[in-house]
Amino acid sequence: MKYLTAASRLLRHSSRNLSDLGSNLQFFCSIRPSSSCTSASNSISAHIDAIARLSYPSLRSYERFIQDDCFHRKFTLKNICFGGSGVGILHSLARFQSDGIRTHHRNLASTASIPERNKSFATINSDDISYFNKVLGGRGVVQDEEKLDDANTDWMRKYKGSSKLMLQPRTTQEVSQILDYCNSRCLAVVPQGGNTSLVGGSIPVYDEVIINVGSMNNILSFDKVSGILVCEAGCILENLMSFLDNEGYIMPLDLGAKGSCQIGGNISTNAGGLRLLRYGSLHGSVLGLEVVLANGTVLDMLGTLRKDNTGYDLKHLFIGSEGSLGIVTKVSILTPPKLPSVNLAFLACEDYLSCQKILVEAKTKLGEILSAFEFLDINAMDLVLKQLDGLRDPLPSSKHNFYVLIETTGSMESHDKEKLEAFLAQAIESGLLTDGVVAQDINQASSFWRIREGVPEALLKEGAVYKYDLSLPPEKIYDLVEEMRQRLGTAANVVAYGHLGDGNLHLNISTPQYDDNILAKIEPFVYEWTSKQRGSISAEHGIGLMKANKLHYSNSAETVQVMAAIKKVLDPSGILNPYKVLPTSVLSQS
Amino acid sequence: MKYLTAASRLLRHSSRNLSDLGSNLQFFCSIRPSSSCTSASNSISAHIDAIARLSYPSLRSYERFIQDDCFHRKFTLKNICFGGSGVGILHSLARFQSDGIRTHHRNLASTASIPERNKSFATINSDDISYFNKVLGGRGVVQDEEKLDDANTDWMRKYKGSSKLMLQPRTTQEVSQILDYCNSRCLAVVPQGGNTSLVGGSIPVYDEVIINVGSMNNILSFDKVSGILVCEAGCILENLMSFLDNEGYIMPLDLGAKGSCQIGGNISTNAGGLRLLRYGSLHGSVLGLEVVLANGTVLDMLGTLRKDNTGYDLKHLFIGSEGSLGIVTKVSILTPPKLPSVNLAFLACEDYLSCQKILVEAKTKLGEILSAFEFLDINAMDLVLKQLDGLRDPLPSSKHNFYVLIETTGSMESHDKEKLEAFLAQAIESGLLTDGVVAQDINQASSFWRIREGVPEALLKEGAVYKYDLSLPPEKIYDLVEEMRQRLGTAANVVAYGHLGDGNLHLNISTPQYDDNILAKIEPFVYEWTSKQRGSISAEHGIGLMKANKLHYSNSAETVQVMAAIKKVLDPSGILNPYKVLPTSVLSQS
Repeated sequence: MKYLTAASRLLRHSSRNLSDLGSNLQFFCSIRPSSSCTSASNSISAHIDAIARLSYPSLRSYERFIQDDCFHRKFTLKNICFGGSGVGILHSLARFQSDGIRTHHRNLASTASIPERNKSFATINSDDISYFNKVLGGRGVVQDEEKLDDANTDWMRKYKGSSKLMLQPRTTQEVSQILDYCNSRCLAVVPQGGNTSLVGGSIPVYDEVIINVGSMNNILSFDKVSGILVCEAGCILENLMSFLDNEGYIMPLDLGAKGSCQIGGNISTNAGGLRLLRYGSLHGSVLGLEVVLANGTVLDMLGTLRKDNTGYDLKHLFIGSEGSLGIVTKVSILTPPKLPSVNLAFLACEDYLSCQKILVEAKTKLGEILSAFEFLDINAMDLVLKQLDGLRDPLPSSKHNFYVLIETTGSMESHDKEKLEAFLAQAIESGLLTDGVVAQDINQASSFWRIREGVPEALLKEGAVYKYDLSLPPEKIYDLVEEMRQRLGTAANVVAYGHLGDGNLHLNISTPQYDDNILAKIEPFVYEWTSKQRGSISAEHGIGLMKANKLHYSNSAETVQVMAAIKKVLDPSGILNPYKVLPTSVLSQS
Repeated sequence: MKYLTAASRLLRHSSRNLSDLGSNLQFFCSIRPSSSCTSASNSISAHIDAIARLSYPSLRSYERFIQDDCFHRKFTLKNICFGGSGVGILHSLARFQSDGIRTHHRNLASTASIPERNKSFATINSDDISYFNKVLGGRGVVQDEEKLDDANTDWMRKYKGSSKLMLQPRTTQEVSQILDYCNSRCLAVVPQGGNTSLVGGSIPVYDEVIINVGSMNNILSFDKVSGILVCEAGCILENLMSFLDNEGYIMPLDLGAKGSCQIGGNISTNAGGLRLLRYGSLHGSVLGLEVVLANGTVLDMLGTLRKDNTGYDLKHLFIGSEGSLGIVTKVSILTPPKLPSVNLAFLACEDYLSCQKILVEAKTKLGEILSAFEFLDINAMDLVLKQLDGLRDPLPSSKHNFYVLIETTGSMESHDKEKLEAFLAQAIESGLLTDGVVAQDINQASSFWRIREGVPEALLKEGAVYKYDLSLPPEKIYDLVEEMRQRLGTAANVVAYGHLGDGNLHLNISTPQYDDNILAKIEPFVYEWTSKQRGSISAEHGIGLMKANKLHYSNSAETVQVMAAIKKVLDPSGILNPYKVLPTSVLSQS
């Protein structure tokens, strides 16, 4: 009862709408982890978040300095044991020093779990270089070792290829000529945008030619009536966001990596991100694509129409196929109008069922203004408060088993606030919420988001962590957490948080140090459990190199066979992004 | 100024929100054309709407009585000249009498524009019938001539096939066994749901075996937390709507044909409908499918996850491919929560540019509550008021060049009303609107919708009409209308209306009687013009049999070639829905 009174008081006193401070949409962008060069020069903790959220294997224990265009401050990561790798995959030591990058990667070629180099692929010779120089007019034919080093290395500094050549085309025609040539020569290629893949999807595995579309970065048109943007694939997401901001629109997706990632890569990986709950997936937002096939054929599917039922909608094949079916060169995308009012509530529930019920209520009562629904459990909350400096419990009068963050975004601030307060009052009255507070200003909102976003960083500080990024039916999400706790007993701290509104669980298992026996208790159990529930072993990060051999956990054999057959039709020689997405065994059978 | 004052007064006096009357969402469903057997027994005019909106060729001049489960009243249609047919395609006379159906169809086989029967297809024999009886346990093997007559005949009563066999499987396994057998015997099949295709997509062209999935009509699961519905393909759309209504959710699509059409067919044709502006296309809403391929392979892609990036998202291939790549047997779909407040405004603009600007303003100011944005021009308005009984001009003080209907749907009635009024006041002040009124009760809202929905019926009453259903960039939409007026001069009345919010124009050309010379001035001009603007010659109705040879107007040769290659992979013998979607010439080349 004390809590209810406190909550009511807090809610009543939440009189300052966040939008009072103006430009709060911008603000909400900025308080989330960003790798933006322009905004994140002092956001090393955000970068740690971003790294931690990458959720994937193969860095066991390393210290590093990071230096790139964005990050200059030193930090130390200890005992990072990314789940999903399988035992024995990770033995890399990546070291970055402030006076330059020196990298000691595990050599992919020496690893049993990485397929052998496909011997049918040719290797680059001087004639090839001459041809590419001719096609690109002498510009964008990169053989410089240092530049290649960056392009050969993935965002996680976990994988490193050995490409000797990066091409930087500026037009679709150039991409077409390059691919036509590579296909005829049987030269393997890897398409690359911002190179922010978290699953080793955008780096060469061996000596593939890197085709980087970053120079194709023009906005081609924007229709202010329909909100339809057409641009080249190399446009950086954050640049598109800035452009649209001036036009009164927003991108339908927002990612931590927005300062580096490119729209062509976003589409090729079907990036999810922070706005999926509200604006849906890219399969709904992308209206058209221009794609170059392996043989250089340009598929012009660059429609700007919301309705077009003329034949098979082929563009969807290229959304999420990670550049293995074609290279996206141009994009047409529907963008939502920018809305001025944003609110954030930090709430407490006693059980997981209440979290689910609150979600249903929020979808009904907040309806059209609901823009985020995140959750974390008591283990996550305790860890954040223990490990991160300067954070306070927003609901200090008691501990709670679950915490929920609800964000609203709408067109009229007074309405949104009234809706939120009415919703919260009813939720408290019905017993679904045991406590709660609405952010009264930007600082408070920032601190609420910091708790949710800080979980990965807190986990890293705590010790070793096995990380899984899963989609599950909402009612099953916490069953897995509880089963995992039973399975591991006191040997590990099982921590759960994620995008409850999207059914996306970030399952993290924290131990003082890395232990093969723990991993053996987690895997393949976690994949098998997910598979049994018809869940996804990769909610939003894709398959890439890392999970090509785990595809069967979320796809039937028949489905994978059809994928392989389609790959064979569109890329008969398999030159596009080889060793990725599909198991090599399936490709060789098809 | 008089108008502004009048409008302000009307707006101020619009104090009764539609939702005062309760269940107004239901109401809004009911006032739209429906072919529901339960609701439309007295809605012959709605049925005329539905027919008129079908928008397609080949009925020139006929009278008919309609009698089926839903429609019993007599009406007469004169001089219906559906555009898009090409000269000389249409010579059918369909006559339905109240004492039974007697149909005099144009024989498809005798028509030059219909491909010849593919000689590689076998014909049914008694062994086949024995096999199917065994698979289906003696039920659902239909050879009765009268039942076959219905299944051989399309919704428009324009096409008639000559199938001798309809199979009605009840399980996926049965569909699989049937297709496996048909594939091995090279028996062509046509998948059929509610048989409401408007482009001849769901009827046999020759003697294809009809596989009707209407008996697979179970709801398999509904998750009240996520709003995810899983059901069999034969569920009738309206039944799903009723089911969800009790659960506090709605289907993300709503169609005039909802009383007959089935969800499997909706998905196979990527049905658009009335909610697309708000909830997007089925590519965004459909989360998973179960599909049976031509060779009987069951593709289990029946995920219930909002996020799943594990390999190629193959389900999109089957959304909109009109059953030519596989038969959809089960569906998983994300459904939005039901919201209680609905408002409707009927507004006037002096020019098309203002309509566009109003759309932009509505998207920003009404933002999250905007649920429909329709327009009609003065020619459409005049025609409706002239031809339809009992309709009055909602803005009688003056004529206007354009009329716009704006619908809002939201979670709190007072908020929605306030937003709408603020938006309208500003639009009037800025000169974008010259007059306007907000519906004050259900009857008024019904009469507003009746004006918009009544245009097709009014056109039919006026005489001959050439109908086109086009998607175009919004800023180009009215250019085509004006060019067409210039082109036709006083010989025809060019009428424009449609879903401006979706960029979907219904272009209608009305003449006293059908005239080949007029048609020659319209076609292929209208298709070429649409193609030049990168528009779509079929916004939402698909290709089917009718437009297979017009596919190139909205797709490049390379894209059509890839479609054909994918068809070849998934259905090598071409048994699935032959002669449809893709030009036969392309298929024979691939």
